[in-house]
Amino acid sequence: MTGTSKDTHTRDTRQRILTAGTELFRRRGYTGTGMKQIAEDAGAPFGSIYHFFPGGKEQLGEEVIRTSGAVYLGLITTLMEPYTDPVAATHDAFTAAADTLSELDFADPCPIATVALEVASTNDTLRRAASDVFARWIDGLGAYYAAAGVPGPAARETAGSVIALLEGAFMLGRTARSTAPVLAAGTAAAAVVRAALDEG
Amino acid sequence: MTGTSKDTHTRDTRQRILTAGTELFRRRGYTGTGMKQIAEDAGAPFGSIYHFFPGGKEQLGEEVIRTSGAVYLGLITTLMEPYTDPVAATHDAFTAAADTLSELDFADPCPIATVALEVASTNDTLRRAASDVFARWIDGLGAYYAAAGVPGPAARETAGSVIALLEGAFMLGRTARSTAPVLAAGTAAAAVVRAALDEG
Repeated sequence: MTGTSKDTHTRDTRQRILTAGTELFRRRGYTGTGMKQIAEDAGAPFGSIYHFFPGGKEQLGEEVIRTSGAVYLGLITTLMEPYTDPVAATHDAFTAAADTLSELDFADPCPIATVALEVASTNDTLRRAASDVFARWIDGLGAYYAAAGVPGPAARETAGSVIALLEGAFMLGRTARSTAPVLAAGTAAAAVVRAALDEG
Repeated sequence: MTGTSKDTHTRDTRQRILTAGTELFRRRGYTGTGMKQIAEDAGAPFGSIYHFFPGGKEQLGEEVIRTSGAVYLGLITTLMEPYTDPVAATHDAFTAAADTLSELDFADPCPIATVALEVASTNDTLRRAASDVFARWIDGLGAYYAAAGVPGPAARETAGSVIALLEGAFMLGRTARSTAPVLAAGTAAAAVVRAALDEG
């Protein structure tokens, strides 16, 4: 095995551990997920988790939050940017989110929501990671609304409320095993954006 | 000790266990809360938890969800009914919720949110309990919006979206340790209700 292919293998194992952690967290939460289960799902030897994440579960948890947060920021941009009408963009993003919820068999489409609630009062490192991720999503979506004509501070507040609506609708939809709350929230989110544009 | 005062004592212990469970779940979630901790916080002997809740943590969890759900339904009614204007009622309910979030030092004002996300994919008994509670809140708030002039099916959808907004805003607010997302969500929720009234 050459050095290069060993490096690739190493990166693959680390990535598989991160992916397994992300998938388990969105189904079982942070507290409900054991390191042993993550190793098993990643097809990695148990000890290798501590090789890659010497800080253990907290380090892995923080990296899952920050990495999947960055991926989702890209997703928001990709989803919204083709639209010139921010009201339609917002509405259709919720329709797409409802499809994802159903495809995931009602696991959380948001990779950090369950962890965020679990750690908010108990683990400040992970709370801050989740807070940073939400702040970046709100910045990104807020910039999109600002460019689309929502005035400055209202643009960021609108983005925050649209993300809150999506997170809350995922909670109701997961619990009821139904996409209906997410689809209804799409209509509500469109109304929120329309009202913000009218204020501008 | 008379039979009556013993019954009272028994009821008190059971109630203290439920209260301790509710308080711990909103801070640490369901998985992160141990029965031993609940007994300690309730000032009850460890064994008494299994006396009162022979089904163990799941039975206690279900009862916490259903009991606190019923209490909150009463709270929604009390909070909204003095208002004749549903837009102002909705806006001011979020302001009150922001105060509660701050008073709780950013523990979850909603007693079932964290548990709902944790169990949605892993425990069907608790998922159903949470789903029943959300459905009753949506029914109750939907009836209020219907009485205030929002047409039939839209009234229930509006209620669902307002509750989703509140749950999502608690998530953002807890994570950021800030009431700002809840206050912003109040403006958004008012816009959602206004739009639903205008459609009617």
